[in-house]
Amino acid sequence: MKVALIGLGNMGRPMAQNLLRAGHQLTVYNRTRSRADGLAGATIAASASDAARAADVLLTIVADDAALQQVLYQGGALHALPPGALHVSQSTISVELSRRLAQEHAARGQRYVAAPVLGRPEAAAAAKLFVLAAGDAVDISRCEPIFSAIGQRTFRIAAEPAQANVVKLGLNFLVMAMLESLGEVFALVRKHGIPAAQFLEIATGTAFDLPIYKNYGGLIAGEEFLPAGFRMQLGLKDARLVLQAAEGAAAPMAIASLVRDHYLSGVARGMNELDWSAIAKVVAQDAGLK
Amino acid sequence: MKVALIGLGNMGRPMAQNLLRAGHQLTVYNRTRSRADGLAGATIAASASDAARAADVLLTIVADDAALQQVLYQGGALHALPPGALHVSQSTISVELSRRLAQEHAARGQRYVAAPVLGRPEAAAAAKLFVLAAGDAVDISRCEPIFSAIGQRTFRIAAEPAQANVVKLGLNFLVMAMLESLGEVFALVRKHGIPAAQFLEIATGTAFDLPIYKNYGGLIAGEEFLPAGFRMQLGLKDARLVLQAAEGAAAPMAIASLVRDHYLSGVARGMNELDWSAIAKVVAQDAGLK
Amino acid sequence: MKVALIGLGNMGRPMAQNLLRAGHQLTVYNRTRSRADGLAGATIAASASDAARAADVLLTIVADDAALQQVLYQGGALHALPPGALHVSQSTISVELSRRLAQEHAARGQRYVAAPVLGRPEAAAAAKLFVLAAGDAVDISRCEPIFSAIGQRTFRIAAEPAQANVVKLGLNFLVMAMLESLGEVFALVRKHGIPAAQFLEIATGTAFDLPIYKNYGGLIAGEEFLPAGFRMQLGLKDARLVLQAAEGAAAPMAIASLVRDHYLSGVARGMNELDWSAIAKVVAQDAGLK
Amino acid sequence: MKVALIGLGNMGRPMAQNLLRAGHQLTVYNRTRSRADGLAGATIAASASDAARAADVLLTIVADDAALQQVLYQGGALHALPPGALHVSQSTISVELSRRLAQEHAARGQRYVAAPVLGRPEAAAAAKLFVLAAGDAVDISRCEPIFSAIGQRTFRIAAEPAQANVVKLGLNFLVMAMLESLGEVFALVRKHGIPAAQFLEIATGTAFDLPIYKNYGGLIAGEEFLPAGFRMQLGLKDARLVLQAAEGAAAPMAIASLVRDHYLSGVARGMNELDWSAIAKVVAQDAGLK
Repeated sequence: MKVALIGLGNMGRPMAQNLLRAGHQLTVYNRTRSRADGLAGATIAASASDAARAADVLLTIVADDAALQQVLYQGGALHALPPGALHVSQSTISVELSRRLAQEHAARGQRYVAAPVLGRPEAAAAAKLFVLAAGDAVDISRCEPIFSAIGQRTFRIAAEPAQANVVKLGLNFLVMAMLESLGEVFALVRKHGIPAAQFLEIATGTAFDLPIYKNYGGLIAGEEFLPAGFRMQLGLKDARLVLQAAEGAAAPMAIASLVRDHYLSGVARGMNELDWSAIAKVVAQDAGLK
Repeated sequence: MKVALIGLGNMGRPMAQNLLRAGHQLTVYNRTRSRADGLAGATIAASASDAARAADVLLTIVADDAALQQVLYQGGALHALPPGALHVSQSTISVELSRRLAQEHAARGQRYVAAPVLGRPEAAAAAKLFVLAAGDAVDISRCEPIFSAIGQRTFRIAAEPAQANVVKLGLNFLVMAMLESLGEVFALVRKHGIPAAQFLEIATGTAFDLPIYKNYGGLIAGEEFLPAGFRMQLGLKDARLVLQAAEGAAAPMAIASLVRDHYLSGVARGMNELDWSAIAKVVAQDAGLK
Repeated sequence: MKVALIGLGNMGRPMAQNLLRAGHQLTVYNRTRSRADGLAGATIAASASDAARAADVLLTIVADDAALQQVLYQGGALHALPPGALHVSQSTISVELSRRLAQEHAARGQRYVAAPVLGRPEAAAAAKLFVLAAGDAVDISRCEPIFSAIGQRTFRIAAEPAQANVVKLGLNFLVMAMLESLGEVFALVRKHGIPAAQFLEIATGTAFDLPIYKNYGGLIAGEEFLPAGFRMQLGLKDARLVLQAAEGAAAPMAIASLVRDHYLSGVARGMNELDWSAIAKVVAQDAGLK
Repeated sequence: MKVALIGLGNMGRPMAQNLLRAGHQLTVYNRTRSRADGLAGATIAASASDAARAADVLLTIVADDAALQQVLYQGGALHALPPGALHVSQSTISVELSRRLAQEHAARGQRYVAAPVLGRPEAAAAAKLFVLAAGDAVDISRCEPIFSAIGQRTFRIAAEPAQANVVKLGLNFLVMAMLESLGEVFALVRKHGIPAAQFLEIATGTAFDLPIYKNYGGLIAGEEFLPAGFRMQLGLKDARLVLQAAEGAAAPMAIASLVRDHYLSGVARGMNELDWSAIAKVVAQDAGLK
């Protein structure tokens, strides 16, 4: 099985390394070619369409809808992918684009699975991602050797690919809601004279004994927003995708709306490059905290 | 050390049982006397003031500010408590009332510790509560035999009693925020055709592998809002206390505001008696779900 | 008819002047006695209870619930007011306090009308206030010579006094909502390069041709928040009263919640002394504007 | 000057009639041809491109971005419009699309003015619209005979066409904010036993003496949401456009976010076809009112 991977960013590059380690025959492509340096054993394609043309399975893991459309349309990968070959979209993209891709691949006799991944870059490096896969069961089974090389567990969600994107956005929303709520409660306790770190120790020592609370809570309490694991600009993008998915299904999500507004305010205050957990800094400033 | 306990509700009664089991000499009082039936070994006081008069340490664990004021003022416990004796307030009350009690006890030469507890009635029965204690360090040390009889761990928070109440409200806020966010994300996925239980399995199988998410998530996914572990009416009360504490410190808490509004809407729709996790039902109805 | 007026603030003093001009026999009381200087023809009472004792009709116009309770309870006015005499409460107070006063006055054989007034200090000076009166119809009729001396029009709302307070809070809410919405739309257009004043001219030249939009819009566009006609601290108080009234009736008011949060943030940022229209400055700062 | 008008909906048809009345030489096109029946004196084009080809000035007044793109791209009007001819876009469209049209027309040597109109269909029939025009000053001057035939006043906003779209969205936002705030205050007073109509009479008899408050307030108080002057589905669309414009400029608009969520909930509850003032019905239901 010939595998191609387009997108060698913070997530894609460690995924490529794990695929090579697992012995896959891998072709890679990235707009900035130097990102492919040192990927021993990989074939480096000259273009997105070249990568797609030679693939049985084409993985894409890029930043957003625009980047994926660039690869598929302007970059020609959609047209170049052979009939019967499988596109596995692993980016966090909109439900709408995922639906459109399902139609376009079907129209060309190509296969399509949406399999966004959950985890930070360190989890990608450790092959500990969670894979959220939706699509035809046979197609997903074809991907098992790939998914097991990059992740610790695969969830099979549904036959309709876009439902995997809904689930991914839903999980990202839960993280955002957690970040915002930590920001609010830290502002409350700090203004009452209680250090955020002390409150966090109590919270994670009782009902919220969970790495995601500990890790993000620690970053926020220590105000360590640089370097960003996931930039606020991307947090804003994800909030927008959540709200679009919610609007598409006529489901109001009040926390998602206010998170979007706080990210927007963060961007307006010049925090784009901070980690998305810096939404707590927006909330702290609104409470008059430095 | 003579211990008195006022309040034999869902939390107070199992706490009394555990104190008796640990060998404490215990006097109890409850407005509805029958709640004291079967507490073998306890002395049953005829009034709140009688309970207080005989105590070295007076524990109070009642529903809200109004109930505690009823016990202390109209019920005479404040006046009856001997100088040097210690009042340990374990209810979830307002920061403002806790501050006032600190002053009033000090003016009478009495001691005061705020030690609200964290945990559902089952945790109280299993002596697995968390105790959040603030006050004079010597006073808290005096209470160690009591706290170890009812709880699994005591957190010493600060010298100012009301700060324990702030922390308790902060933790309750985190739970509310979690309930609201589960409600929103379940509405999102359900309207996209994905069962809430399936999404919950993924969330708790990945980043949110925590009993509080599993338990509440399961209740919400299964729409099991009766019998209420903690009634929506009390959830609304807690949201109000959080917002009062936030207003007192000039800290806006946007999620707390919207949670309050959703609880208010739940009450307006006749859901007072449902569990506070039924805030998710309010959100589901707003999305047109049954 | 002997009239007493307690409270000679920005509103009460011009009201007293207009009552004197209209020929009323007037006794006044204010905590800071110098506020009574120059009220030619008025008798100056030494205390709130002295003012109440001599009155057929006692008007009170003070800052908030606490001030009114100070006058009535600690100040003794409630006890001193003769049976059959009428208390006309013209302050913006809570629905709850107004209900309690109705009971307490009835228990003492005194009469009670709630008649909050609408208008800024300039309107009070020009005897152009609107009076929102609720209570017994005969009692309100007794007040007609008073109301016509201070206002341009009296609305008779209902037999239950507290309903006038609900209406007053409702009107104040509409003003707050207008201020917040002007703040948001000005941020939007300014960030698109359109001056706030230009947008305001279009808005008031088309669908929003109303003094309240013009006046407040002009203050906001010109950032003229000092001197405050009505301080932000009082805006926050009113937002709180609106939310309390809403909670009492189980009516969620989402704009009221967010307005409260924005006022709270304004106070946290040190804007307490600015005019309440400076809520627009909070919104502008959140958008990264200076 | 040969004028073409594409779009004969609730707004476009009365505008066409007024143009004919004013003696303009007019060609019209509408997807549903029967909407052109009875427009005596108008030439009916067979296609959008035919309408554009013959025009010195092409007016478009359609429902949304999608409809305008349909006319211009698939319908061929963009390609058919002669160099030097002027496109006057009068629809409420996104700021983004307006910016793109400015570029595309410039690239083809065509002129472009954004001139959205303000007013309900009755105002269009009475030639009482307000025209919000932005673009080259000479181009706007060319349009004066057109604008004076359809409207009562033209505002010249800026040289950049999209700024007129920003202003239009800003004004629509003010209306939405007003509708939501009326909904909230009516819920408050109704739940306190005060009829909405009585409160409205007081509000419009005092500070809010404005047709837009009276008219919409009357519709809401009387629950007259059918027939819709402007459907909730369109209100949702406009809220989305406001939020997009706000996001594009990094300006959080909290009322716009909650209005969007309430419209979304209204749609989820099956109210799409009601007038957009029925946002007040959503709010009333949330307060437990029928």
